[in-house]
Amino acid sequence: MINRIALAGCGNVGTALLELLHEKKDELARKYNFHFEVTMITDLFKGTVADPDGLDLKEVLNQLHTCNSLKAIGEKEGSFEEVLLYSNATMLAEATPTNLETGEPGLTFIRTALKNGISATMTNKGPVAVAMEELLNLATENNAQLKYEGVIMSGTPLVNLIQTGLAGCKVLKAEGILNGTTNFMLTQMSHGESFDEALKDAQDRGYAETDPSGDVEGWDCAVKVSILSQILYGEKIDVKDVDRTGITDVTKEEVVQAKLDGTPVKLISSIEHTEEGKLIAKVQPIKVRNTHPLASINGATNAITLTTDNLGDITLTGPGAGRRETGQALLTDLIEMGI
Amino acid sequence: MINRIALAGCGNVGTALLELLHEKKDELARKYNFHFEVTMITDLFKGTVADPDGLDLKEVLNQLHTCNSLKAIGEKEGSFEEVLLYSNATMLAEATPTNLETGEPGLTFIRTALKNGISATMTNKGPVAVAMEELLNLATENNAQLKYEGVIMSGTPLVNLIQTGLAGCKVLKAEGILNGTTNFMLTQMSHGESFDEALKDAQDRGYAETDPSGDVEGWDCAVKVSILSQILYGEKIDVKDVDRTGITDVTKEEVVQAKLDGTPVKLISSIEHTEEGKLIAKVQPIKVRNTHPLASINGATNAITLTTDNLGDITLTGPGAGRRETGQALLTDLIEMGI
Repeated sequence: MINRIALAGCGNVGTALLELLHEKKDELARKYNFHFEVTMITDLFKGTVADPDGLDLKEVLNQLHTCNSLKAIGEKEGSFEEVLLYSNATMLAEATPTNLETGEPGLTFIRTALKNGISATMTNKGPVAVAMEELLNLATENNAQLKYEGVIMSGTPLVNLIQTGLAGCKVLKAEGILNGTTNFMLTQMSHGESFDEALKDAQDRGYAETDPSGDVEGWDCAVKVSILSQILYGEKIDVKDVDRTGITDVTKEEVVQAKLDGTPVKLISSIEHTEEGKLIAKVQPIKVRNTHPLASINGATNAITLTTDNLGDITLTGPGAGRRETGQALLTDLIEMGI
Repeated sequence: MINRIALAGCGNVGTALLELLHEKKDELARKYNFHFEVTMITDLFKGTVADPDGLDLKEVLNQLHTCNSLKAIGEKEGSFEEVLLYSNATMLAEATPTNLETGEPGLTFIRTALKNGISATMTNKGPVAVAMEELLNLATENNAQLKYEGVIMSGTPLVNLIQTGLAGCKVLKAEGILNGTTNFMLTQMSHGESFDEALKDAQDRGYAETDPSGDVEGWDCAVKVSILSQILYGEKIDVKDVDRTGITDVTKEEVVQAKLDGTPVKLISSIEHTEEGKLIAKVQPIKVRNTHPLASINGATNAITLTTDNLGDITLTGPGAGRRETGQALLTDLIEMGI
């Protein structure tokens, strides 16, 4: 059987997915019995192309790398739904830009796929933050699958760990370093850089945006805690209800002293399901005791410790960003949804 | 649909599985749509009981906890295969004692189940070490599943991580702390205990056996490396071909000094698939640089770092032993094999 893949959003992540699919075509067939064609690619700027028999990935990548556009391959006219149905896709990979207020344009794309019984995976936090429950129900109603490995910790397979690796375990509490930019900055500050120097360093390396408030004020972490709440407990916490403190008031002196004291400062995102059934969601810079699994996580790395009933503490550490890493999140979901 | 579970081996781990199944019956139905009955339990010392309609788990556990025997429930006569077929089991959980030379008695039990199209999960390293390839082929031929989450790192879901979480990634190299006893001993030695004091401490806590050679000479790690080779690369490495050095020649002075130097001594088990297609398998005490993800793993904890093509380094940390932890490994496999 052939899986026919549609891709919505062909920026860094979408292009990385296409590269991985192209590079690994034989390996995926051999190792996972996963056979595929890419039958549709749509991007707001680069155009829309589709072929139910499969696009020529080599030509597509050549066009993307040389012209940053797909228009020379031939523009396919029509609404997203029309082209999706024309392409005969069996699964959608969604990697459009994130809008946390509306979830668009990804939300509409995913709704359209699921309504037509087409499974979907996304790395886009927007649709998950806005409408996760609706989308999961829509998937069930239409006998389709919905996956979202990439929305937290990029390709580091946290969602898979929670949903399959720990099946049968109850996660009582999760504590994570879920924002690589601020963890990099705190690491640099522990080496003696000021907040501003560390921020500039993070910006120079492409970790932090020109407007860094999403990272340093803890909003990015708060969104992730809100999504984690859905994944772990099936309950939505509004981002505004996360008890959130960023790292803007943390000084170099504090960070250096804490490291000397053996209790390094980390921006910890946490969610806990109390015995009374209450959810406690926090994002806070914390002096972590040296024996804590997160104390030694430095640089732009992400890590999460899940405290469980049957296994005690399980910690997963890996990259939290990157185009290839996030493309890998889509790839692993596609393989799992495959036939 | 009801999954009918047979259990072979009702020692610490098997009993822990029964406890988990009993405690979590409602949760498993609700969260995973996993409905089950335990229809057979067999143990060399405690007896064999079977009921195709499902045994009364409360009564079974009561008998185990009060008499350490199942004989009062009524002994079911017949060969393993006869009772297994009578019990109408759809899946086997195998937790008999490990024999690394013959794989028995687990190997025969698993062969019998698979030949009859009954899926199996095991925590027993014996059958995997002796006949993994044969068993995987037998499973495929008979349209059954074979799982073995518990054979490395107990319930910490390493096998799941490799096989599903990292689907699409190539693992170039694995380096792990895969023996909790020796890691506990090295941690105690870094605090100033001698080898003998650390060993006694490990024995007092139930980590080390009276004859500790399997742990301290690195044999347990070598077996795990050999199994990892199968899981990661589908290639068998004989345990004797693992380049193996234990910790028997490691002194307190070395360990204390290495810790002061910021390069703690760890017993690292590793397997690497070189670009030339060669497998390099080692078990060695190594001074690990302080920034390595395994440097901060202390006590009886296990951890493994997988170096991958798409995600860089992924580290998974968790318990490597324990009755409830190993029972959880069986449970997660049963849920995944479930219908």
